Amino acid sequence: MNRVDVVVVGGGLAGLAAARELVAAGKDVVVLEARNRVGGRTMGGVLSNGVPVEMGGQWVGPTQDVVLELIEELGLETFPSYDDGDALMFVDGQGVRHASPTFGLPERTAAELARLSGLMEELATTVSVESPWTTKEAEELDRQTLDGWLTSNTDNDLARRFFRVLVPALFSAEAPELSFLHFLFYLKSGTSLETLLNTTGGAQESRVVGGTHRISEQMAVELGDRVRLEAVVRTIRQDVDGVTVEFEGGEIACERVVVAVPQTLAGRIRYVPPLPSARDAVTQQMPAGSVIKFQVGYARPFWRIEGLNGSVLSLDDAFNVVLDNSPEDGSCGVLVGFLEGRHARVSVDLSPEERRELVVSALVKFFGPEAAQPFDVVEQDWNNEEFTRGCYGGRLGAGVWTQYGEALSAPVDRIHWAGAETSTIWNGYMDGAVRSGRRAASEILTHG
Amino acid sequence: MNRVDVVVVGGGLAGLAAARELVAAGKDVVVLEARNRVGGRTMGGVLSNGVPVEMGGQWVGPTQDVVLELIEELGLETFPSYDDGDALMFVDGQGVRHASPTFGLPERTAAELARLSGLMEELATTVSVESPWTTKEAEELDRQTLDGWLTSNTDNDLARRFFRVLVPALFSAEAPELSFLHFLFYLKSGTSLETLLNTTGGAQESRVVGGTHRISEQMAVELGDRVRLEAVVRTIRQDVDGVTVEFEGGEIACERVVVAVPQTLAGRIRYVPPLPSARDAVTQQMPAGSVIKFQVGYARPFWRIEGLNGSVLSLDDAFNVVLDNSPEDGSCGVLVGFLEGRHARVSVDLSPEERRELVVSALVKFFGPEAAQPFDVVEQDWNNEEFTRGCYGGRLGAGVWTQYGEALSAPVDRIHWAGAETSTIWNGYMDGAVRSGRRAASEILTHG
Repeated sequence: MNRVDVVVVGGGLAGLAAARELVAAGKDVVVLEARNRVGGRTMGGVLSNGVPVEMGGQWVGPTQDVVLELIEELGLETFPSYDDGDALMFVDGQGVRHASPTFGLPERTAAELARLSGLMEELATTVSVESPWTTKEAEELDRQTLDGWLTSNTDNDLARRFFRVLVPALFSAEAPELSFLHFLFYLKSGTSLETLLNTTGGAQESRVVGGTHRISEQMAVELGDRVRLEAVVRTIRQDVDGVTVEFEGGEIACERVVVAVPQTLAGRIRYVPPLPSARDAVTQQMPAGSVIKFQVGYARPFWRIEGLNGSVLSLDDAFNVVLDNSPEDGSCGVLVGFLEGRHARVSVDLSPEERRELVVSALVKFFGPEAAQPFDVVEQDWNNEEFTRGCYGGRLGAGVWTQYGEALSAPVDRIHWAGAETSTIWNGYMDGAVRSGRRAASEILTHG
Repeated sequence: MNRVDVVVVGGGLAGLAAARELVAAGKDVVVLEARNRVGGRTMGGVLSNGVPVEMGGQWVGPTQDVVLELIEELGLETFPSYDDGDALMFVDGQGVRHASPTFGLPERTAAELARLSGLMEELATTVSVESPWTTKEAEELDRQTLDGWLTSNTDNDLARRFFRVLVPALFSAEAPELSFLHFLFYLKSGTSLETLLNTTGGAQESRVVGGTHRISEQMAVELGDRVRLEAVVRTIRQDVDGVTVEFEGGEIACERVVVAVPQTLAGRIRYVPPLPSARDAVTQQMPAGSVIKFQVGYARPFWRIEGLNGSVLSLDDAFNVVLDNSPEDGSCGVLVGFLEGRHARVSVDLSPEERRELVVSALVKFFGPEAAQPFDVVEQDWNNEEFTRGCYGGRLGAGVWTQYGEALSAPVDRIHWAGAETSTIWNGYMDGAVRSGRRAASEILTHG
């Protein structure tokens, strides 16, 4: 049987970043990827006019230093997301143009949102991102859902509705599905709520020329035939002598394994001996969010002419988060938008044509009749991908951090865990994925 | 390749009940069970003096008509759980003897508990057990956790603490981990909160002579070599012609499959083609509870002499739910008790000796010095069982019923779902397991 130093399960950003570090340190490494491509939750797409679009994770921004540095190292380039002009907010049948952090909401609601955000940010400062379960008021914060906290902390109906749309935009899950402690952890992990929400100066600031999947593809080129595609890992056996990783079609022996797949998929591998119950429970309790992503191509970015930046938030519509995703040269117009959380779950029962109609009619409402004639609409339903089963990432419901947090990334003998969900910094983001892979590699290298 | 009409995955009560119905209707059936025993979450144990004890599900009671009838059909017998005398309640360092539904709590707290229970029962009447997501106020009820509802509905600290102990006793999970809609569904599914909690007249009323695992063993005897042990199912492939079930060591072709394992384990099987995303999401969002069960044997049931029925509820201790589990003839004394939810999760890190000490010292506190000298203590940690991964059953957190409920038991082409968690009546109980198996069998027989 083939024997290497380390087998990495999963050829997304985390797994490839781990492999890259290990190879740089002289280790013999194999990456087993279940699909016929690398990149995991990043994936390249192309509109009918040849313009590349991102079907998965697509933005990078300030303080995401690790992924930004990696992009540069790999010879890739970034360019700023389009962010000139006014954004649109739709609420109760009214559309409002705005260029402010108040989202164009009535003054009283804007003030209430500022108060609530302030409270959240203040509480977030108390959270330990390294070990959220040790946070001073961890029990009390983790006992509540984000929705429960909102209900207890504001009577402003519009403010509640606003957050109940904002939460799926960040987590592709609904506010009751999230522990309030997890929400606060996530804010701090990604710097602040403002950073998470912003384009310029925030998490949506920049894009990668050609698409973010190129980060993984470049790493895979470097790794060469160490990366094996269409290798579906089913069983990981370990004993005192080493590990055997069994995949459909073969097996490889090694010293150590990095499992770099979403937690819910990590639980689908059989481990012999079985994992400790706390670690197994993590895989039972970190479900993935739900999102269908759309890229809608137009002959030109016509909204810019009217001074709009293409950004929409709607409290009235299922298709309720839109951004300008046109190519850097503006040679055509592209709007990117999402069905998230509940809206994604409901709309999987529609036909592709019905979903297209839903999306295009929302864009006509937002931007006027020119939006009715896209030259192409492409969609990506991440929940239907067997080897993803949901995006943007895994979330923790009430009570999970405080009862199972410690087991999330602690190695189990020869098995090390990576993936965006295991990162303390930029958890759930591409930057966090790369960090997690490097952390796992470092655990192995430190061990010797 | 071997070909049968139906393959049943899982040899617990649900799977065996399904197989029994199908065989009775003339179908050719194979049951594939991963372990080297049938019975699933029921399991026989024995104390060092030869007295049999139940290591898993153990009680049956009124309105559990289906399992009671099955027990009789199989030639097994039941006997009443011991329930004569006073129960004990421990709170804030005080022990109180009581023989009342007020649990010996202060009058004001007892009145508040009665008010809260009344509210819960009233709300439970509005729930549709067939389709909880169609319940009139489903959205609002499912948005809240049980803990959130308690926090909003009472300021009585002791009443909150009481429910926060009672909930793990029923679900082996903590109050924030449960949707309030799920809790109400569960009450109605099992008749009422009072029924769930009571011994005489309730869910703990009777035991099976020799242990409840005998129900499965008797069914397995009837099924003969149709039941194959140590067959770990890994992949279910279906197409227009039929299904192939691949297990470690072989494969079987069939017309239809019944998957009768806990939801969290159902998700660990690979399905080709992949399951629809909603069905997959169910398996991501129905984590199992946490419980370590203890059977403690004494020379005699000494507590009875003092007029105690052996029942304890403690708000102060980790080992906080105890019942008399002596053999019918009282030839020795047995106390059964549990570490549930958080307490189970914390105490897996202790050594077996430390857990034994924790349990015995709690029993000495409850019942006096004679409790210090058990002749045997046996424990069963269900979360460490690879082919269970938690008991008593799977639970639904906030938002799951309303977003995914429909996918819980709807067949996916040739695949039918069974297991206690898929039952509308006595969900999570042995009776529900048998009902679910019969329902799956009936789906197949109706189909032809």
